[in-house]
Amino acid sequence: MKTISENKAFGGIQGVYSHMSDVCDCEMTFAVYLPPQAVAGPVPCLWYLSGLTCTHENAMTKAGLQAHAAEFGIAIVFPDTSPRGDEVANDEAYDLGQGAGFYVNATQAPWSSHFQMEAYIASELRDLVTEKFAISVHHGITGHSMGGHGALTLAMKYPGHYQSLSAFAPIANPTQSDWGTKQLEAYLGPDAGAWDAHDAAVLLKEKGWAGDVLIDQGADDQFYDLLKPEALVKALVETKTAHSYRLQSGYDHSYYFVSTFGRDHVKWHAERLKA
Amino acid sequence: MKTISENKAFGGIQGVYSHMSDVCDCEMTFAVYLPPQAVAGPVPCLWYLSGLTCTHENAMTKAGLQAHAAEFGIAIVFPDTSPRGDEVANDEAYDLGQGAGFYVNATQAPWSSHFQMEAYIASELRDLVTEKFAISVHHGITGHSMGGHGALTLAMKYPGHYQSLSAFAPIANPTQSDWGTKQLEAYLGPDAGAWDAHDAAVLLKEKGWAGDVLIDQGADDQFYDLLKPEALVKALVETKTAHSYRLQSGYDHSYYFVSTFGRDHVKWHAERLKA
Repeated sequence: MKTISENKAFGGIQGVYSHMSDVCDCEMTFAVYLPPQAVAGPVPCLWYLSGLTCTHENAMTKAGLQAHAAEFGIAIVFPDTSPRGDEVANDEAYDLGQGAGFYVNATQAPWSSHFQMEAYIASELRDLVTEKFAISVHHGITGHSMGGHGALTLAMKYPGHYQSLSAFAPIANPTQSDWGTKQLEAYLGPDAGAWDAHDAAVLLKEKGWAGDVLIDQGADDQFYDLLKPEALVKALVETKTAHSYRLQSGYDHSYYFVSTFGRDHVKWHAERLKA
Repeated sequence: MKTISENKAFGGIQGVYSHMSDVCDCEMTFAVYLPPQAVAGPVPCLWYLSGLTCTHENAMTKAGLQAHAAEFGIAIVFPDTSPRGDEVANDEAYDLGQGAGFYVNATQAPWSSHFQMEAYIASELRDLVTEKFAISVHHGITGHSMGGHGALTLAMKYPGHYQSLSAFAPIANPTQSDWGTKQLEAYLGPDAGAWDAHDAAVLLKEKGWAGDVLIDQGADDQFYDLLKPEALVKALVETKTAHSYRLQSGYDHSYYFVSTFGRDHVKWHAERLKA
């Protein structure tokens, strides 16, 4: 693991690191914010998964979550959204390939040789940060847009991995959206039966979520129709999953939306991870 | 004035606008954050001047000040750091020309035809935002690095314009620094006598500041030697100017430093502007 940068922030350390990923078979960059409380011993860890076109950097610099992580005493990990590099397959579209890993393990060429983001987030990077940093076994997960999709689906696919869950404007029903069908077909093949395991609205009915979940969605989100929040609300209600779904008047899909409600999410996770 | 974007943030509106500047003789872009309280009537206004290489955008997206502006009920204006465009003079160096206006009115060719940032900030843009937005006559000013220099010098050069003052890691003594002498000579000519009116440490002794001032400086700032904070501290002490100077252990020159102490600065200004 290489240290790219470390900056003091809110009494803790915002670091950026890289390492050779076995599962993605390329160098991967990620960021970790350690709050001041980590000096005294391992702290709970919140995973923040980013959306389309993002790297580890967008939320790290724009979401303002470090202030809240320091206030509540939890670490935050900001992974990249895909494998990267000249040897890694890509597509001209912004929503496929590099920057658009969709948090799945690709089974189809040319993607399968590097695009193993599900295994990377749920296992390899988790093991690495738990070993290298003062991070405890209590992990929560959140994310924005494609990252909200990642948070919801990974939490449900890996029971016990995450003790707390939330999402900002998640892609909630990708098997029924242009933000989903194209990518799931490319990464997983044409059999739509394989896609359901990566659709939060479907997974909620099939596997469920044992805890409660906080979802914020902007009412003026310019991608509302692609996100399909109603499908998730319907599934939450039908399955009687404990949840707080907040449709926020006037908010769009930007980081201003994420930063506005960021403290609520960090507090949500801290209360559950430190309980 | 054109509206480029408006996003809801912390209950208020983060807007980006452009207009044709008379004094800079080019199109200028700026950002205004209006807190939710502005719906009920004009609110005090904090000017945030950015540093070298920045546009209106850097602090707007990375400093996290909107949360605090909403908490304390003040607006924030984020101007650009220089005129811009194909017709505007520039230099290959990052610290001269576009992105490096140093908040002076240039008198020397080729800069003088557009680089009138002092008049732009202190008069033209002030008049515009006061007319177009729910902004009161109570204005404070702050900034980071070159912008800290701009905040300190404009506040002292225009008594009565600003009722509150602070700075993050300001260029404090530019007449004695490589961050200063090159630019002041280029913009104002070789007569160093003309430079003193743009040096905070000198101005403090010559004109003084009637209020109090808050300065934060990172002890691990990688540009510490170029900023020359000791000259400012010496002037503050010698002139018995009311001040709070905080040398912050472990912090560098980045936006993580600014965001960490941003709430303290917004609170400082709000308390004085709303008194």
